[in-house]
Amino acid sequence: MDIVIIGSGNVAAVLGRKFKAAGHQIVQIYSRNASAASELAYEWDTESTNYKILINKNADVYLIAVNDDAIDDVLNELKLPGKVVAHTAASVLKEVLKTVTEHYGVFYPLQSLRKEMVNLPDVPIFFDGSDEKAKHILATLAHSISAEKVVEAGDDARVKLHVAAVVVSNLVNHLYTLAEDYCRKEGLDFKQLLPLIEETAFRLRETSPKLAQTGPAVRHDAETIHKHLDLLKNHPQLKNIYVLLTESIQQTK
Amino acid sequence: MDIVIIGSGNVAAVLGRKFKAAGHQIVQIYSRNASAASELAYEWDTESTNYKILINKNADVYLIAVNDDAIDDVLNELKLPGKVVAHTAASVLKEVLKTVTEHYGVFYPLQSLRKEMVNLPDVPIFFDGSDEKAKHILATLAHSISAEKVVEAGDDARVKLHVAAVVVSNLVNHLYTLAEDYCRKEGLDFKQLLPLIEETAFRLRETSPKLAQTGPAVRHDAETIHKHLDLLKNHPQLKNIYVLLTESIQQTK
Repeated sequence: MDIVIIGSGNVAAVLGRKFKAAGHQIVQIYSRNASAASELAYEWDTESTNYKILINKNADVYLIAVNDDAIDDVLNELKLPGKVVAHTAASVLKEVLKTVTEHYGVFYPLQSLRKEMVNLPDVPIFFDGSDEKAKHILATLAHSISAEKVVEAGDDARVKLHVAAVVVSNLVNHLYTLAEDYCRKEGLDFKQLLPLIEETAFRLRETSPKLAQTGPAVRHDAETIHKHLDLLKNHPQLKNIYVLLTESIQQTK
Repeated sequence: MDIVIIGSGNVAAVLGRKFKAAGHQIVQIYSRNASAASELAYEWDTESTNYKILINKNADVYLIAVNDDAIDDVLNELKLPGKVVAHTAASVLKEVLKTVTEHYGVFYPLQSLRKEMVNLPDVPIFFDGSDEKAKHILATLAHSISAEKVVEAGDDARVKLHVAAVVVSNLVNHLYTLAEDYCRKEGLDFKQLLPLIEETAFRLRETSPKLAQTGPAVRHDAETIHKHLDLLKNHPQLKNIYVLLTESIQQTK
């Protein structure tokens, strides 16, 4: 397919690379950030623009991959009648696109994407469309880059899924951050924890996390917990979270 | 080396398999749990006993891999003069072994180990010894099963490391558990989050978690946060943790 990408951030960059690798043509990148756009355009051997009126009108699909708070700005005065237009935002309703075209939808990648990625990870795609044409084109595009993980999901399911994604990615990453900070202050090497971190994530392929719960909290091992809280006395932020999550583990049935 | 394994739980089972795979001989398993011990003895083509006085006195190393609260019981009346004896417990001082032998130490695997594991993960080993003989034997044993990740660490460092391990494994796993529960109640498929969970863990090989932090909290995206808290109104346990960790992310400098 011929694709115009609107945006030049992490999601635009990684999805664009996946599209190229799948044999699609990226005919243009539009972004307010002219230098980021021209860098991606160079990488993909295509053209870029930062003028909305110069957006190419002959593509099959237009993918709007910009920050939530920039979407309104992009949509203002944008008219692409007859074209399929989708945004990539978890928390934005698909209807915001109805002033642009009758064939609109969502193309939400449930993954943490960063421009710097060398190896592109699996990216489950949750798509939605206003009509059969939008659904068909977006599903086809999704299957071309994510063979096994393509799910049709409406606004409601997508927004709910985003909450879970925040928990298992953003909140989990914050625990990693606090542990790294603790290790640095205590003269320990955080990198030595990586095999444990990876195993804790990977075993979920085989085991429910509920069944895999181990450690002093679930064992009600008060002696170890008190020893740990004593060791955390100079780390009040982490100590506070350690207490709350320990209590929550013990309350879980 | 000739090894006697004391204990028949997760750590005993996985370390024993690693020792066998590295070409060591497991000459005996001692455990109060006779059926678990005889199962492992069958797997490893060796003998088992649940009588302490029948513990083989001719091995090179004795590894005590039992729950923290069972160690005292195992040590009572145990005498293995001239032998190297180590326990695998993060939070137990090595000196508890000094009544057993003069060559004692610790052999702590920094990993979440489960008997059911088919593929044995990387297991960094933190060892400590009371003298050169204990250190040399335990270091050699560690290198034979964990080529690159062997670290000498005293009681103090090991106990501190255990705190970090609890944070990145037990506390993180609890977030997975709450997310799984939320997904089930909301009719979502938790398995669809696995690529995101794995990427969040794996990217730590290249990136500090602090630099990788994304999401509504760090963006101070109050609109999305409020939307999420509203969606969590029937999940008070997760909502409480979502709020606390969101505040903690926003306080992190």
